[in-house]
Amino acid sequence: MTMTQETEAVESQTDVLIIGAGPSGLMAAYWMAVCGVRARIIDKKGTKVFTGQADGLRPRTLELFDSMGFQHRVIHEGHVAVEANFWVPDENGKLTRQGPHCSPKINESNHYNMLLNQGRIERFVIDTIHKYSDLEVERGVIAESFEYDETLEDNPDAYPITVKLRTLSDEEANPAHLTTNGSGPPTAFTNGMGRGSLLPDDWEELIQKSRARQAKTEIVKAKYIIGCDGAHSWTRKQVNIPLEGSMTEHIWGVIDVVPLTNFPDIRRLGTITHSSGTILVIPRERRMVRLYVPVQIVDASTNGRFDRSTITLEMIKARVQAIMSPFTFDFQVCDWWTAYQVGQRVAPTFNKGTRIFLAGDAVHTHSPKVGLGMNMSMQDGFNIGWKVAMVAVGAANPAILNTYTAERHPLAEMLLEFDRLWSGEFTETSTNGTTKADKADRMVDVVESFMDFADGLKAYYPNSSLVWKVSEEEGPAAARNLIPGERIPPMKLRNQAEGNSKWTTRLFESDGPFRIIILAGDVRVEAQQERVAALARILEGEDKTKVSPLCRYMSIPGRESLIEIVTIHSAPWEEVEFFDFPEILRPFDPVMGWGYENIWCDASATWDPYCQGKGYEKWGVDRLRGAMLVLRPDQYIGWSGELEEVDDMTAYLDGVLIKVPTPEL
Amino acid sequence: MTMTQETEAVESQTDVLIIGAGPSGLMAAYWMAVCGVRARIIDKKGTKVFTGQADGLRPRTLELFDSMGFQHRVIHEGHVAVEANFWVPDENGKLTRQGPHCSPKINESNHYNMLLNQGRIERFVIDTIHKYSDLEVERGVIAESFEYDETLEDNPDAYPITVKLRTLSDEEANPAHLTTNGSGPPTAFTNGMGRGSLLPDDWEELIQKSRARQAKTEIVKAKYIIGCDGAHSWTRKQVNIPLEGSMTEHIWGVIDVVPLTNFPDIRRLGTITHSSGTILVIPRERRMVRLYVPVQIVDASTNGRFDRSTITLEMIKARVQAIMSPFTFDFQVCDWWTAYQVGQRVAPTFNKGTRIFLAGDAVHTHSPKVGLGMNMSMQDGFNIGWKVAMVAVGAANPAILNTYTAERHPLAEMLLEFDRLWSGEFTETSTNGTTKADKADRMVDVVESFMDFADGLKAYYPNSSLVWKVSEEEGPAAARNLIPGERIPPMKLRNQAEGNSKWTTRLFESDGPFRIIILAGDVRVEAQQERVAALARILEGEDKTKVSPLCRYMSIPGRESLIEIVTIHSAPWEEVEFFDFPEILRPFDPVMGWGYENIWCDASATWDPYCQGKGYEKWGVDRLRGAMLVLRPDQYIGWSGELEEVDDMTAYLDGVLIKVPTPEL
Repeated sequence: MTMTQETEAVESQTDVLIIGAGPSGLMAAYWMAVCGVRARIIDKKGTKVFTGQADGLRPRTLELFDSMGFQHRVIHEGHVAVEANFWVPDENGKLTRQGPHCSPKINESNHYNMLLNQGRIERFVIDTIHKYSDLEVERGVIAESFEYDETLEDNPDAYPITVKLRTLSDEEANPAHLTTNGSGPPTAFTNGMGRGSLLPDDWEELIQKSRARQAKTEIVKAKYIIGCDGAHSWTRKQVNIPLEGSMTEHIWGVIDVVPLTNFPDIRRLGTITHSSGTILVIPRERRMVRLYVPVQIVDASTNGRFDRSTITLEMIKARVQAIMSPFTFDFQVCDWWTAYQVGQRVAPTFNKGTRIFLAGDAVHTHSPKVGLGMNMSMQDGFNIGWKVAMVAVGAANPAILNTYTAERHPLAEMLLEFDRLWSGEFTETSTNGTTKADKADRMVDVVESFMDFADGLKAYYPNSSLVWKVSEEEGPAAARNLIPGERIPPMKLRNQAEGNSKWTTRLFESDGPFRIIILAGDVRVEAQQERVAALARILEGEDKTKVSPLCRYMSIPGRESLIEIVTIHSAPWEEVEFFDFPEILRPFDPVMGWGYENIWCDASATWDPYCQGKGYEKWGVDRLRGAMLVLRPDQYIGWSGELEEVDDMTAYLDGVLIKVPTPEL
Repeated sequence: MTMTQETEAVESQTDVLIIGAGPSGLMAAYWMAVCGVRARIIDKKGTKVFTGQADGLRPRTLELFDSMGFQHRVIHEGHVAVEANFWVPDENGKLTRQGPHCSPKINESNHYNMLLNQGRIERFVIDTIHKYSDLEVERGVIAESFEYDETLEDNPDAYPITVKLRTLSDEEANPAHLTTNGSGPPTAFTNGMGRGSLLPDDWEELIQKSRARQAKTEIVKAKYIIGCDGAHSWTRKQVNIPLEGSMTEHIWGVIDVVPLTNFPDIRRLGTITHSSGTILVIPRERRMVRLYVPVQIVDASTNGRFDRSTITLEMIKARVQAIMSPFTFDFQVCDWWTAYQVGQRVAPTFNKGTRIFLAGDAVHTHSPKVGLGMNMSMQDGFNIGWKVAMVAVGAANPAILNTYTAERHPLAEMLLEFDRLWSGEFTETSTNGTTKADKADRMVDVVESFMDFADGLKAYYPNSSLVWKVSEEEGPAAARNLIPGERIPPMKLRNQAEGNSKWTTRLFESDGPFRIIILAGDVRVEAQQERVAALARILEGEDKTKVSPLCRYMSIPGRESLIEIVTIHSAPWEEVEFFDFPEILRPFDPVMGWGYENIWCDASATWDPYCQGKGYEKWGVDRLRGAMLVLRPDQYIGWSGELEEVDDMTAYLDGVLIKVPTPEL
């Protein structure tokens, strides 16, 4: 890199540089804040997103939000979508309702699919970051040059990445919105073109503009970089990772409007099928509804590309009116709209070595109609975030960074498969040969076959240093339904000392630690008490024949230990006492007292219909004998076994965490 | 009033002046914001409360919070207290647990008793006020002179109240905390003395101090004044309303600490009785526990008064240790503490005429141990707030202001009765002749006999222009359990158009309107459909033989009508359509579309255990025939009757609201 032209460039260091402050970048930044990492997060836009963009939230994402502590704000503002209707023409071509189909799998999660503007979600994550740290998004800043010295990759103290940052002028960072008024309404509608992460952006143009003036530039040396910079990711291009796949030929319109219509299900999730295509209807907060509608097919003569500026709001409205007919459709308020051509693409890898990572739309693009984009992106950012953060502060083995692509890439592939099937249902123009029931049934089939994946209830994380699957040869697992590589299914438990109920998603807060979950079983039974006591002696370090995993590993700043123990027993809570449990399970702090929040009971509460004492059953754990787990900081199960298997559990942790150096004698 | 010495005093007008920004003042201010009233709220303290003070929240208060839109923040931060234990000495004097007693009446409210610092509640109310208005609390401001011209009382345009305000210096508004360290711990503990509303304050001293310098003063002319300025209310003194009752002889200590103890129920609500008295244990947020403990009896020679400064934190701790023995007790963290002597007093009236009102501790003082102070105060402020606000903007008849004392005074009397019985249990020193079971049973009896009152489930508001009781001669009410003068018992309902569930507490938002609740019954049945249609024709103004209450009354700024119609039917939601209902029940707005949130169904939702379709049953309403109600803006039932009784309902509304002037011909 030549520095001659711009002598004003200052040079600085940061451990982690995050490019892009959308959902995936903010989730990664959250972990930097939690783990006290020296990090920066930049975004080329001068302001955060306020309207439009993504809006769908799946149950697993809400579980994550609960673990981060802001799920209640989402539920307060968001709109729940629990039932879907499929409207298809009957024999006479008349639109007829098929449904409702109830979507929530109430036994799998306490959350429903919800709709809330991406801008609000970003606000909540930013607020949460500020509870841990003063990390701020640097807006109106772009990265414009990149160097990577691979020879330094294995040196933990080295800063192998060099990025030049440029601060944009206000004008550059906040390009004037294009506004396109329809012929009718007097309102100036916000047009999303040129701003969305799914859309071609003006990256190069911004760089060129900026070069023309005396810009403020800065050379940043970083240990790690996480590219969360959208479908046209600059970061991805620097490391020559392609997006593989293809553009589809369909051009879509999307509008956020307050509808004026006599269509009865405009406030319910659903689809409306006409011979020329299918609309997706998504009810939103504040009487708004989002509609996705196929607008036209790309002219083959344009080489598969289309000029978005040829699409107007009036055209989208006319298409909705045509498909929804004979129901009426109009609006006076349009909060946001855009047109786009979907690229169904995925990068072959999400990382380059152990220093450079990509997340979200930077590595997978697809149609927004499955309502998964924001979810996948946030979960990508959450996944890479904690791993990079813990490695950066010297608490985790850099080898865990290899699990990122291994865990997230297969899910991106599934996402594309789901999208191809689901989008196909919207653009298929012929209803010949299919009855209305066929059409609706097929759509239900597609949704249901991907439900566990889409809702995030199954994650399918493969075997790795972070996920020790239980092989069949080892016999049945002690916790049959608690599968390493999966999340722990949420249950509401009662606190032994205070009697109050709490969801595991909140109990297992995303605040850093690996958690050893001791499912202590029925501790009224003497033999079981002795099993728990024996385990406690090992953990206390009193059993000299065994190694205790406690006090064995480095931690993150501000946290004494990276291992936290949570005990969940299955005895009736009235028949045992908090102080019956070994002290290591309810640790005493000389200032903050006993660890009341460390002992829980799988018991029902008459006053809480969600608290039913069905945790052990749901988890497939014997109520007498219990089991033991390790939860990763992201609430995914890393290891599971019997109470006696401390050696195996410690071996798992040894592979992940960094041991405290033995003092030299 | 002489103005000669202070020529700098400016003069201004405000419609409503609220003195004191504690819980009651802020609730009153909330209504000023909602109704767009020109109002001011001042507080002598330079900052809001952060620690200590009140902490108990009862179900009805949480219901109000839900109607105001911040209940989710309270639940997220607060601590639930659902079960109580009573520890009493057994035959051998050994402390033994009696319990647990489960407190929530789950069929009456979806809320539990909760504990959260008053400072957080004030924060939430202030944030909510800002959603409606830019009304700000003016801190460090005292009122120091008062004039009232009674001859102007009946002139709605007059400003009969003149108050001189003085802005305090920072030093005056934020008196240094007294800090008293115990002999042991090194921490400087916050001492609540001199700051709490239950304690003698330094009002006069602040005025004197302020006079000594060139203070900024202001003459404010007001139409209404609401005195929410605590037990030593300056406002109350100006209008010569006494507090009647007496001081008790017991001096109490209260501490907010993070306890270090082996007492097993320190994280549960409960009492611990020893021969020398009883401690009340209240678990709080962030591992804190509040303890109330009788410290000593006032020396008769001091004329019933005691010098609080003789009480130290060490003395309180020693008392707790003595009563809790043989369990240990200590702490390193004390968030707040104080000592107080309880005055059990109530003012004979809460208003002077129709211009001057008093709320909260200004008109009733009692021991804090029933956990009701903040609740009663907020409900006072809420009650007078909407009434004054609506009268001030010309939307309601000033006669409704007379209902304030009539509705709230009897509850203050009940509060004192409850407090006398409950406090007595704490200071009764002899356990002779009573077994441990007797003692615990008696305490349970006291709590249970006041439960409905204390939780706020019954309000007992008497007959008035705002409450039209149904007399027995009229025969059985159409809604047997929906009693004018009571709140509407919360139920979770399903929205007809969108299928989502919502609590009535949130649906009947405290945002201004009187609501006509049409319990439309089983609208599948033709005869019932015709009853609803006939009602709709009257409401529409199509039935020329009847008067429609819609468009008949003045409204508050920003709201087209002060009457909102909400329909709740009892037919299975799948068997009726939103558009089946008469248009007046789902009004169309040319910009915001149809009133989807106006039609609800009393139906169950498989995915929501709280939504069970039991509303009609709970409310005592026939599922076929339904009923009709008017809810006041505070969710209390004002009127109830049959669907045909529109004339009677309109007569009720005529007595409360102001008719739109008939245009002159």
